[in-house]
Amino acid sequence: MLKLDIHNHILPEKWPDLKARYGYGGFIQLDHAGCGVKGKANMMKDGKLFRVVEENCWNPTARIRDMDETGVKVQALSTVPVMFSYWAKPEHTLDLSRLLNDNLAGVVAERKDRFVGLGTIPAQAPELAIEELRRLKADLKFPGIQIGSHVNEWNLDAKELYPVWKTCEDLDISVFVHPWDMTMGGRHSKYWLPWLVGMPAETATAICCVLMGNVLEQFPRLKICFAHGGGSFPYTVGRIQHGYNVRPDLCATDCKTPPREYLGKFWCDSLVHDPVALKLLLEVIGDDRVMLGSDYPFPLGEHHPGLLIQQSDLPDSLKRRLLFDNALEFLNLDASQFT
Amino acid sequence: MLKLDIHNHILPEKWPDLKARYGYGGFIQLDHAGCGVKGKANMMKDGKLFRVVEENCWNPTARIRDMDETGVKVQALSTVPVMFSYWAKPEHTLDLSRLLNDNLAGVVAERKDRFVGLGTIPAQAPELAIEELRRLKADLKFPGIQIGSHVNEWNLDAKELYPVWKTCEDLDISVFVHPWDMTMGGRHSKYWLPWLVGMPAETATAICCVLMGNVLEQFPRLKICFAHGGGSFPYTVGRIQHGYNVRPDLCATDCKTPPREYLGKFWCDSLVHDPVALKLLLEVIGDDRVMLGSDYPFPLGEHHPGLLIQQSDLPDSLKRRLLFDNALEFLNLDASQFT
Repeated sequence: MLKLDIHNHILPEKWPDLKARYGYGGFIQLDHAGCGVKGKANMMKDGKLFRVVEENCWNPTARIRDMDETGVKVQALSTVPVMFSYWAKPEHTLDLSRLLNDNLAGVVAERKDRFVGLGTIPAQAPELAIEELRRLKADLKFPGIQIGSHVNEWNLDAKELYPVWKTCEDLDISVFVHPWDMTMGGRHSKYWLPWLVGMPAETATAICCVLMGNVLEQFPRLKICFAHGGGSFPYTVGRIQHGYNVRPDLCATDCKTPPREYLGKFWCDSLVHDPVALKLLLEVIGDDRVMLGSDYPFPLGEHHPGLLIQQSDLPDSLKRRLLFDNALEFLNLDASQFT
Repeated sequence: MLKLDIHNHILPEKWPDLKARYGYGGFIQLDHAGCGVKGKANMMKDGKLFRVVEENCWNPTARIRDMDETGVKVQALSTVPVMFSYWAKPEHTLDLSRLLNDNLAGVVAERKDRFVGLGTIPAQAPELAIEELRRLKADLKFPGIQIGSHVNEWNLDAKELYPVWKTCEDLDISVFVHPWDMTMGGRHSKYWLPWLVGMPAETATAICCVLMGNVLEQFPRLKICFAHGGGSFPYTVGRIQHGYNVRPDLCATDCKTPPREYLGKFWCDSLVHDPVALKLLLEVIGDDRVMLGSDYPFPLGEHHPGLLIQQSDLPDSLKRRLLFDNALEFLNLDASQFT
């Protein structure tokens, strides 16, 4: 069965010193020498170690080797969320987005049969974001973007983002929402809580805001997908719908359509690491709206992308949709471009 | 079928002016006159409206009328989480806990066939908490307590709380964990997000800390139950277990037992508002570890307690356990005391 993995992250092998380029810190750099281990590099933030990554994070050849081993035909590539840099000055985030997107376009151009690109945009500055969206479509031929679960103080229902959604809709650019910028420190310091609990909550917040914030009503042709099996949303949809029912004064302020009516109108990836959760995900989000997503090449991802689906007792016809066809529909692509 | 509802909230009809009693504000008062509607009262915090409640929040007769209508034989009564007041001076939280617990004991004493009490403790001051736990057991004959999902800056794995868990274990006092003190304001201001997304995340944090914080290893006889169907934990247990597997340096710092091995060793209530979620809850947490919990008398609760279970296609023998028997086991009670 063909597999298209919607949820992957990639970095350029190198990029300019952003602190020197923009005049202030807070950005991520990749330090290949500092790690001291061949095939590994340190992601550094202002001189401090942020995370160690391996060669498959920046080297397309290493990726394809892994993809061949696990039978992944195509990866939809997106940057690592910490690179979003929505907090920086808009013109700098635009510049960095261009650097990342141009690099990604180069990777895709080399292997159009194995990669498609999901770009990044300076979402905190919608006019600049739209400028980059147009370039992504016209010049780089990307079928979609990745965006954070929130943009600084805006949730995804912020009116300021409406022109971004409109442009995505008009240009047929699909949107992959990734949690980021979770609450850290204090009570969240132990047990990887920002990743294990914070990320699913971030994603549920994003879904709630898209639904109750009327985004899909305003932009009915917007194709939007949420990472990590929709975070905590699918299991708590009953609570969310019930909350909407009993406190419309709090929940139906911007929207007249109940959350459940939007089920089937947005996508989630399959990254739940559990067969029982996968079953609930399909029942809630819909057989046509779940797509293989592995979070490759990071350890919290599905190490053999698609194995949870492949080893399930779902019918083969459904497995094919989950592993490949649904992503083609989401990205407005044709299978022929990969074969 | 008999129903014991583990998750209910009750307030005294009136209590002393706590600001006058302790010399500072931040406490909740119940204002019956200010609401202007018979049978309703305003919960006020420093003169500002916190929430409107109805007579069934403080009047046992009104509660029993509702219970008779929905076939609830027994309610396990606990205070409203905003009354925890862990932030106050320890001696004042102890004093307030005594007021609330004594009032609750009076309600239970009137109708031992319909009510049991879950007390509240000054958890931020373990020595005082233990003093109150002993009184709850010896004098008030309560089978359990309710505690917040965290205690100020402590999660439930804080070493400071170990003597509390030890006392609960020694005295056979069961623990019902309720989310509270969610992140408010800012991005969380709309769509009731602290209740719809924040509470499930709070509960998942509490479960993660109890499991990875080694609490059940240290106190294997501790009986602990988490509200709202375990929050987001049951759906994300795959992610949490996978995180534990791949980053033991972050997750296995305090515990050598993987999270999944604790499944079946703690309880959750049934409050998920969705048949698909109920099914997942049972599969993950266990048929013997889920108990009817309705959050009565609040709007976000199950308005007909137990109806989700009753209307499910589960076998009657399992329905009986979920509606009644499992709670008896959790609370170390015998059915005969209610019949």
